[in-house]
Amino acid sequence: MISELDVIRRIRQQGTLFDANLLKGVGDDCAVFVTNAVETVSLITTDTLVEGVHFDLNWHPADRLGHKAIAVNLSDIAAMGGTPRFALLSLAAPSNLALETLDLFMQGFMAALAKYNVSLIGGDTVKSDQGLVLSITLIGEMDKQQVVYRSNAKPGDQIWVSGFLGQAAAGLEICRQGHSALQRNYPELVAAHLEPIPEMALGRALANSGLISAMIDMSDGLATDLAHVCEESAVGAIVHAERLPLLPSTQQAAKSLGLDPRQLALAGGEDYRLLFTAAATANKNIQEMAHHAVGGQLHMIGEIVEGQGVFLHSGEQKDRIDFQGYDHFSPGL
Amino acid sequence: MISELDVIRRIRQQGTLFDANLLKGVGDDCAVFVTNAVETVSLITTDTLVEGVHFDLNWHPADRLGHKAIAVNLSDIAAMGGTPRFALLSLAAPSNLALETLDLFMQGFMAALAKYNVSLIGGDTVKSDQGLVLSITLIGEMDKQQVVYRSNAKPGDQIWVSGFLGQAAAGLEICRQGHSALQRNYPELVAAHLEPIPEMALGRALANSGLISAMIDMSDGLATDLAHVCEESAVGAIVHAERLPLLPSTQQAAKSLGLDPRQLALAGGEDYRLLFTAAATANKNIQEMAHHAVGGQLHMIGEIVEGQGVFLHSGEQKDRIDFQGYDHFSPGL
Repeated sequence: MISELDVIRRIRQQGTLFDANLLKGVGDDCAVFVTNAVETVSLITTDTLVEGVHFDLNWHPADRLGHKAIAVNLSDIAAMGGTPRFALLSLAAPSNLALETLDLFMQGFMAALAKYNVSLIGGDTVKSDQGLVLSITLIGEMDKQQVVYRSNAKPGDQIWVSGFLGQAAAGLEICRQGHSALQRNYPELVAAHLEPIPEMALGRALANSGLISAMIDMSDGLATDLAHVCEESAVGAIVHAERLPLLPSTQQAAKSLGLDPRQLALAGGEDYRLLFTAAATANKNIQEMAHHAVGGQLHMIGEIVEGQGVFLHSGEQKDRIDFQGYDHFSPGL
Repeated sequence: MISELDVIRRIRQQGTLFDANLLKGVGDDCAVFVTNAVETVSLITTDTLVEGVHFDLNWHPADRLGHKAIAVNLSDIAAMGGTPRFALLSLAAPSNLALETLDLFMQGFMAALAKYNVSLIGGDTVKSDQGLVLSITLIGEMDKQQVVYRSNAKPGDQIWVSGFLGQAAAGLEICRQGHSALQRNYPELVAAHLEPIPEMALGRALANSGLISAMIDMSDGLATDLAHVCEESAVGAIVHAERLPLLPSTQQAAKSLGLDPRQLALAGGEDYRLLFTAAATANKNIQEMAHHAVGGQLHMIGEIVEGQGVFLHSGEQKDRIDFQGYDHFSPGL
């Protein structure tokens, strides 16, 4: 049986990266750190992943889960335009959790931290009566003047997303159905679910550029995340159905799964692409910046309007769609 | 059924305290804050409480659980000598959780935050397939020169604890057995379990005094927490059995429950008193400081020695006791 000290020792063995601003990491009542400079602000975010709700160890390799657990938090730092620095990991684990699974999880987790230059500085390990619950807190920093909030979208702004939508939701459904032919044919969809890649470089570049007005990462699906921006900014939004960025593979897989690809794009969640708004005059600069500085794929999908609500326009049809989709307290897709 | 937006709205309705260092609290991808001054460091700690492992809603009133959830984190800030500032709350809740329970929990939680002048700046709400899982991250700050680590205990130092031991463990056992006569007769023991009071003022005063060498809060029981100090400081420790601070009520209740009161004191856990070490020459100053500045009750229970291991001396008998007691991955007491 795994003991709490086992877990803590395994975490400490992984070591932490050297960081001159970290005075004390794992191994005391608190971690202790300083921020860099007067004009620097600290960013902090937390996300919880619950076995059976957010992941299924039957198909989710533990190392890729370790990557995903930190990626979903990194994505929140990206959505402010910041740089991640420190992580805390709380692990509520059933006592029958295999040590191999824990080690594999920690390998993936620590590899992702190293890749993004983040130090593990603390956490907690407790027993869970049932499944594995992972709660991660991530601290980042950035220039005070460059922080991009959700609350500054303006009527007339264009709405952008930083990649194709619906891939993670399609990948989840392929895994859930155990559809081995689709798993072979659409590895990129499965990977989008198992191991999303946060948009760190793009988030920083957009914040640096001063071109954009509001930003959020898409964890709950376009319909919900755009509604958050609208609510915080006291504006409405129109999304044009024909502009929704859907890859052919997502459309084909959706067909095989008996799902509506547009619904995957709007309400699927977990794509972890960035959604941001910018004045129409910035359109050309944003396209150039994305192309040259980041190599990212940006899609302009609609515009911010006066009023409230998120509407999908498809030819003559206009549907209100805000907060459609994933609710962690309701059944999934 | 409760929805995620319900939960978030309820949390936001509670409002946050005004804090000039907080640029953005709940409602964006990250919370954004600055630290006060050049010589200030940030402290960060996280603790997870799992229904059925750390609390039982059958006997734990939800408002007192809200208090306890933040108190266990406050205690970690106290153990560095710091002042708490910001909290994040992650709530994994079953979809059948009653709204009244959630509201009561939030009332207790927010009342405790207000009492200790802490702002709720973020969090996460997700569905749990089974019980309630609470994960709280707390950020504090303090003067860089005054931070008290676990790692500086020196041979010859005296070992102190800041109150009576074994009360929370006795209270837990009274609740667990549903022993109504004991609940009436020993409300202070039950309260020690349901709603521990963190030693914020004492922690700050001790750190300020410059008199102490190492400090930890006792969440896992004296035997384990003192062993942490010894491991981090590369020293050993002797505890004198006759000096263990046990109230008569704890001894009487233990007798009624068929438990060994000494074992409650050593291995019971959750007392959340401070354990600290200081040179013997500081003995008188510490007693005076505690008496005048804080009104606290301090007990000198043993001394730090060369070598390793925590030993209990009782007359001629010498037992090694490090890491006895509570392990979150093993069965409880």
